[in-house]
Amino acid sequence: MTSVLDPIALAQALIRCPSVTPADEGAMDILQRTLEGLGFRCRRMKFGEIENLYARRGTARPNLCFAGHTDVVPVGDAGAWKQGPFEAQVIDGLLYGRGAVDMKSAIAAFASAVAAVGDVPGSLSFLITGDEEGVALDGTAKVVQLLASKDEVIDHCVVGEPSSSAELGDMIKIGRRGSLNAWLTVDGQQGHVAYPHRAANPIPVMIDLLARLKGRVLDEGYESFQPSNLEVTNFDVGNTATNVIPAQAVARLNIRFNPAHKGADLMAWIEDEVAKADAAFKGKVSVRMLLSGEAFLTPRGDFTSLVAEAARAVTGREPELSTTGGTSDARFIRSLCPVVEFGLVGATMHMVNECAPVEEIRQLTAIYRTLIERYFERFS
Amino acid sequence: MTSVLDPIALAQALIRCPSVTPADEGAMDILQRTLEGLGFRCRRMKFGEIENLYARRGTARPNLCFAGHTDVVPVGDAGAWKQGPFEAQVIDGLLYGRGAVDMKSAIAAFASAVAAVGDVPGSLSFLITGDEEGVALDGTAKVVQLLASKDEVIDHCVVGEPSSSAELGDMIKIGRRGSLNAWLTVDGQQGHVAYPHRAANPIPVMIDLLARLKGRVLDEGYESFQPSNLEVTNFDVGNTATNVIPAQAVARLNIRFNPAHKGADLMAWIEDEVAKADAAFKGKVSVRMLLSGEAFLTPRGDFTSLVAEAARAVTGREPELSTTGGTSDARFIRSLCPVVEFGLVGATMHMVNECAPVEEIRQLTAIYRTLIERYFERFS
Ligand SMILES: [Zn+2]
Ligand SMILES: [Zn+2]
Repeated sequence: MTSVLDPIALAQALIRCPSVTPADEGAMDILQRTLEGLGFRCRRMKFGEIENLYARRGTARPNLCFAGHTDVVPVGDAGAWKQGPFEAQVIDGLLYGRGAVDMKSAIAAFASAVAAVGDVPGSLSFLITGDEEGVALDGTAKVVQLLASKDEVIDHCVVGEPSSSAELGDMIKIGRRGSLNAWLTVDGQQGHVAYPHRAANPIPVMIDLLARLKGRVLDEGYESFQPSNLEVTNFDVGNTATNVIPAQAVARLNIRFNPAHKGADLMAWIEDEVAKADAAFKGKVSVRMLLSGEAFLTPRGDFTSLVAEAARAVTGREPELSTTGGTSDARFIRSLCPVVEFGLVGATMHMVNECAPVEEIRQLTAIYRTLIERYFERFS
Repeated sequence: MTSVLDPIALAQALIRCPSVTPADEGAMDILQRTLEGLGFRCRRMKFGEIENLYARRGTARPNLCFAGHTDVVPVGDAGAWKQGPFEAQVIDGLLYGRGAVDMKSAIAAFASAVAAVGDVPGSLSFLITGDEEGVALDGTAKVVQLLASKDEVIDHCVVGEPSSSAELGDMIKIGRRGSLNAWLTVDGQQGHVAYPHRAANPIPVMIDLLARLKGRVLDEGYESFQPSNLEVTNFDVGNTATNVIPAQAVARLNIRFNPAHKGADLMAWIEDEVAKADAAFKGKVSVRMLLSGEAFLTPRGDFTSLVAEAARAVTGREPELSTTGGTSDARFIRSLCPVVEFGLVGATMHMVNECAPVEEIRQLTAIYRTLIERYFERFS
């Protein structure tokens, strides 16, 4: 049984909920009611103050899941918006509002596609979180854990992040690099520059440590990935006195790494270099690290080809299968099943006057519909 | 003709002038009147707002000069002083006040010694500035230039800085290292850590540059000097965003160098390394430098031995001939004649409750008197 669900109207309703992480403001309720109207069985999961939703229609396999988030980033300079960031009006064919691109319109497009497709030989599901733009601790990571613990099976997943680069359908993300931040501290001994033997200058120790870390060639690239990269993103001492050797230096680095590396291995390497620097210094060298996500790659194959084919069928463009860009919740879902990301053009995401062409939201709906139809032709 | 001049009374009169650089507050007038009373011909030199004085008694050679300064550093936490920092009272045998150690008492001690000695076969002179603790631009440097331009001859000079380390007479300074500060700036291009090829990170460039500068062994030491030393004294970026490659890094270094180096050579070397780093980087690498003073050494010989002998004759201690410590005005006087520094114990200089034992001021007077007497026995 098919029905008609206008993706623009649903996108507008969702945008009108000012769901800046961790707020929900009714967005999840709107989505739940919509999906229940389409025959989905909804399971809400609240972790901390975060709303999450897993909805499924059907019990048979294969289970094709759409994943996304209802939370949005802050509006930025509110006065610089053409209209209120949560008004969701269409001006000259563009739907304005925070979340129009990232990614309430994609949720609406998939729901609309599901309505149009009707019953499928298998299951359709939604995995929606309210904590993607925030620290992402009480969102998809926990939902995935819970689903795994209940032996819920998802066969394939499409994440609706704005993956397109310049034009709708020109890019699909089939992997992402992992990301690791490290905060380094060297505690030395303050003193006068004329008596360096009475002091312990932390700056050369930090310089040597960073040079050694930066000096390692992590890899030359891995399949579709650029080489892994370490960037030193900060270095602070804050000493204003020209004749004083300072007591402390802090620095921070970020590693974006491809699947040639595991976060744990990189952390062990950094710990080891820090321990060596500490052993060689009369002060103290220490590090704190946060792994934001492991690298992942969904190998090119039937599923990635299917998503590319659906995009090409509607837009006429051959999408690039890319692994560029920052992290997304796909890093959590990869533990359950093959995952790709496909959605709108990301140009205005996170910016003032974020907007999506209404026509492209309708095209995205058509792509998702094609994807669903051909998926169950091929994978059932 | 000899006379009696109490060094404690003169030191108190000088301390009661709150002559925090660049203020004079009558200190130079008190000294001028005192020296005129001892038969000195006084020449005042005002450069900018700074009072300077050159006073000489006699026209024959040799001309033995005493150099020093009437200016003092700020009082610091005024409430923490036992008495007002310009009250100059003696408590339990200690003369308290800003300048009691550095170095109004030494000026008073030398004047008292001169009074006691009477006529000498040669000349005695004073070279006193009001700008030693400040930027030192309108002080001894300019007086020395002026004296040189008028063909004034000084044969030997004693600077009355607090050279003693733990006990009066345990150390004479016969040289000082030079000091050079350099402020380095690397301007890159800000960007996102996930797209490093679109940015130009200034931090690794600064790290490489500093590692190269720090990596050079300047020397292994020179006669009485420790090896020259380069300290990186600051490194700042100030980037709080973990996913951002910053636009700029600044750093600062200080070189304390012995007479194996000239400031100009060190500056040319740094300029050269900066130019190389700049040429290899798509951003900009630049440097600003300030040479505070060249290194100098008065070779061990008759004059250094004489000063040591005078100290030993009064205190019974064998003074170490040292080149340690920060810069002093001796760096300017060295262009005129051999120069050594000898004065009180520096322990409380520049601190709250700066104080000198009255007994040590009297001993210093006796040392200076012995020095003057034996100087004219040996060098006339
Ligand atoms: Zn997003
Ligand atoms: Zn001084």
